[in-house]
Amino acid sequence: MVHSADKEAMMFLGDNWIGAEPYGPYFKEIGLDAVVGSVGSGMTLRLIADIPGVKYTEGRFLPYFFPDVFRPGNDPVIEARANWLTARRALMRKPLDRIGYGGYLKLAAQFPHFVDYVAHVTDEFRDISDKIADTIPYSSLKVAVLNGWGKLRSWQSFIVAHGKRYEQTYSYEGVLEALAGQPVDVMFLSFNDILATGIPADVDVMINVGSVGTAFSGGDIWQEPRLVTLIRQWVAAGHGFIGIGEPTATAQPYQGRRFQLADVLGVDQELAFSLSTDRYWDQPMGENIAWITKDLTLDFGTGTPNLIAVADAQYLRYGREQLRMTVKDYGAGRGVYIAGLPYTLDNARLLLRAMHYAAHKESILMQNYATNPNVEVHVYPGKGLYAVLNNTHDKQNSELFLNGKHTVVELEPDEIRWEREPQ
Amino acid sequence: MVHSADKEAMMFLGDNWIGAEPYGPYFKEIGLDAVVGSVGSGMTLRLIADIPGVKYTEGRFLPYFFPDVFRPGNDPVIEARANWLTARRALMRKPLDRIGYGGYLKLAAQFPHFVDYVAHVTDEFRDISDKIADTIPYSSLKVAVLNGWGKLRSWQSFIVAHGKRYEQTYSYEGVLEALAGQPVDVMFLSFNDILATGIPADVDVMINVGSVGTAFSGGDIWQEPRLVTLIRQWVAAGHGFIGIGEPTATAQPYQGRRFQLADVLGVDQELAFSLSTDRYWDQPMGENIAWITKDLTLDFGTGTPNLIAVADAQYLRYGREQLRMTVKDYGAGRGVYIAGLPYTLDNARLLLRAMHYAAHKESILMQNYATNPNVEVHVYPGKGLYAVLNNTHDKQNSELFLNGKHTVVELEPDEIRWEREPQ
Repeated sequence: MVHSADKEAMMFLGDNWIGAEPYGPYFKEIGLDAVVGSVGSGMTLRLIADIPGVKYTEGRFLPYFFPDVFRPGNDPVIEARANWLTARRALMRKPLDRIGYGGYLKLAAQFPHFVDYVAHVTDEFRDISDKIADTIPYSSLKVAVLNGWGKLRSWQSFIVAHGKRYEQTYSYEGVLEALAGQPVDVMFLSFNDILATGIPADVDVMINVGSVGTAFSGGDIWQEPRLVTLIRQWVAAGHGFIGIGEPTATAQPYQGRRFQLADVLGVDQELAFSLSTDRYWDQPMGENIAWITKDLTLDFGTGTPNLIAVADAQYLRYGREQLRMTVKDYGAGRGVYIAGLPYTLDNARLLLRAMHYAAHKESILMQNYATNPNVEVHVYPGKGLYAVLNNTHDKQNSELFLNGKHTVVELEPDEIRWEREPQ
Repeated sequence: MVHSADKEAMMFLGDNWIGAEPYGPYFKEIGLDAVVGSVGSGMTLRLIADIPGVKYTEGRFLPYFFPDVFRPGNDPVIEARANWLTARRALMRKPLDRIGYGGYLKLAAQFPHFVDYVAHVTDEFRDISDKIADTIPYSSLKVAVLNGWGKLRSWQSFIVAHGKRYEQTYSYEGVLEALAGQPVDVMFLSFNDILATGIPADVDVMINVGSVGTAFSGGDIWQEPRLVTLIRQWVAAGHGFIGIGEPTATAQPYQGRRFQLADVLGVDQELAFSLSTDRYWDQPMGENIAWITKDLTLDFGTGTPNLIAVADAQYLRYGREQLRMTVKDYGAGRGVYIAGLPYTLDNARLLLRAMHYAAHKESILMQNYATNPNVEVHVYPGKGLYAVLNNTHDKQNSELFLNGKHTVVELEPDEIRWEREPQ
C-alpha cells in the first residue's frame, strides 16, 4: 500500500519492533525501505546501523525535544554532547545513513545554542559519512559474542528501552557498548551455530557474558559435552575465550563445577555446597593482569559473588576475598575472566586489552593505538585515513601508534582529528 | 580411664570436636566432665556456655600467647580489649564457669601491662559470675532461629574456626553474634521440629537466615506445603517472621517464587527469567522501617542481589535499585526482611528493634532499653539487679529506660555499671 502510493515504508525500531527481527532471514522480504531508531548509546546505534537488507538506516539522537529537558534553567546541550560522543565512536565503525532528532521543534527553537550545537553535530556527521560511509574500517581482531540468540539478536543483549541503565544488566551491557566503537570486527554467534558448523575460522576471541540462566550466558546448554569440547579444543589451539559475570554457568553445579569452562577461564563460583574453607591465596597479581589493567581505573559494577580462582590462574582481587579478574593459559590459548564490566572509557580499554591478550595479539593492538584510554584511533586503509577521537569533554594528550609509528597528539574537548595514514 | 585415675575429662571444642555433638542427646552420656573452647566472639562463647550435661564450661580468651601477637612493637592489649568487650555481652546472658588464656606464658610475662589487663578481666569476670551465675536474665521476647539443624547445632551456624571472618558468611553470622548478647531468649528450631510438633507456643519471632541451598536457610524443604502453611498460620495469628539473606529460598523458582514466604517477608528475588522490567517504586520509606532503623548506621554486608518488594511491603533502598529491607503486615503478624547483617553494634540494635517490631512488642522493648546502640542493658529480676554495658572503648552517654523509668547514664570506656533495679 505504501509503495503503491509512491512513498517509502520506514519502521521505528523500538516503538514498532514487535518481533520483526531485523537480523532474521525474512526481514529483507517484508517490504521495508528503512529503519529508524533512538540512539541511546553506541550499541543502540550499531543495532540500527548494522541491519542488513534495508535501503537506509536513521538514528534519532537525544535529547528528544520534550519539556522535561527543554525547560527554563536546563541546558539541553549537556545531554546532546554526551549522547553524540557516546554514539560517535560507534559511528566510526558503521555509519548510519541519516541522523535526526524528534519532538517539538518550537521547544528546541527556544534554545538557540542548542540549535547551533545540532548544526555542529550534523556537520561532523556529514564529514564522517563523506569520508568513510563506503569503506571497511581496519580491525585488529575478530570477536564473536557467544549467546543463545547469535546473529538474530545482534547488539540486542541486555538493552532496556533505548539503552537506559538497568541494575540487573548494566554490568554486562558495558561489554557490547565497548565493542560498538572499538577497532575490532564483531560477530554474534549462537550455541547452535557452534554445534552445527563449529567455530568460524577467522574468529580470534569469543566472549560469553551474562547471568546464569539467561540466553546471554547460556544456562544448561553448557551441560552439552560437544559444546564444551569444541570450545576447549579451539582455545587450546591458540585462541582466546573471555567470560564476564557468570559465563558458562549452569543453574546447579554440574560435574563439580558452576562455570563449566572453569578450567579455561581460571575461575569458578562457590555455591552453598562448597562454602567452608578459605581458598584465597596471598600471591601477588600476575604480570599478565598487570599488563591488561595498567593505569586503568576499573569498575566491576555489581560484580559476581563467591568466586574462586582455580589452579594456575593469575588473578586480581578487590580487598581480601573478592575476586575480580583471572587470566589463565590453556594449551596454546588463553582464558580471561572479568566479574563485571559497566561501560566506562577505562573499562572499554580493559576489554580491548583483554581481547588482544587472550588472542595473543598484544603487539598487533599496539600497531594502531592511543595510550590514553580517553582517546580512540580508527584506521581506514581503503581511504588512507585515520581518525583520532577525544571521547571526553576535556582536553586530552596521548601518545599514538599508527602503523607502528610513534607520535603524540593533543586534542581539544570532543575533538575528532582526521589525518592521512602514515606510510 | 580418666575417671579411674581420679582425673576429670575435658574436651577442647574446636580442636577435638569430631562429631561429638555437644547439643545432641547422647553427649551427656559420654563421660565428659567439662568443655573448653576458644572464645572468638559472643556466639562462640554461647556455643560453649550453653552446652548442657557437663559439670562446667571454660572459655579460652584471645589473644593466644603466640609470637604473632606477642612481639616487640605490638600491643597485645588491643586484641584482648576487643575480645573481652565482644564476649562480655554474651557472658551477661549465660556466664561460662571458668575463663582462661592459652599459649606461652613466658611471652605474656614480657608484657606487664597485658598481665595487668588480664587481672582486670578476671576481676570483672568474677564479679559478673558472682552476681548472675545462678539466675535467669530478663528476656523481652523469645526468638527461634530456624534452620536445618535446630538445637543439635545451637550457635554453630556460619562459624569458621573460632569465629574468624569469612566472606561467604559474615553477612549472616552477625545475626547470631547480635543475639548472643541481647536480652532475648534464644532457641534453635529445625524444620523437622516444626513438621513434627509445630511451633512452640512461647516463641514470639522466628528468624531464617542464610544463603539458598544451605542447611541454614533450608533449601528445597521450602517446597513442603505443610511447612509454609504452618508458618503462615502462625505469623497471621500475630507472630513475627524475619528473613535475612536468602530466607525460604529454593534453588529453582517454585510456584513462581524464589522466596517461598515472599508473601510474609514482603520481598522476592528476581532470577534471570524475570529480568526485564523496572519494578522499583519511588514511594518513600515506610514509617515502620523508619522506626526500626532510626539513627542507626547500617551495614548490609555483601547484601543480596536482585531483590524486589512485593505489594503492600514497606521497603528501604540503597541507591535507586538496591533493596535492603522490607517490612510487611501479614494478618495479625508481621514479616521483616534484611539483605544482610554483619555484626556491628548498630546492626545488632537493628535486629533487636526488628524482632520487637515483628512481634508487636515495641513497647515492651522500651521498658528496659538504652537509646544509644553502643550501650546495652541487662536485667536480673531474681537479684534485683541491672547492668549497663558500654560496649566500646569510648565514653558513652545514653538515655536509659529501666522498668519503664527514664534516666540518663554516662559510662567510661569499656565500663560495666551495676545498679539496683528501680521499683
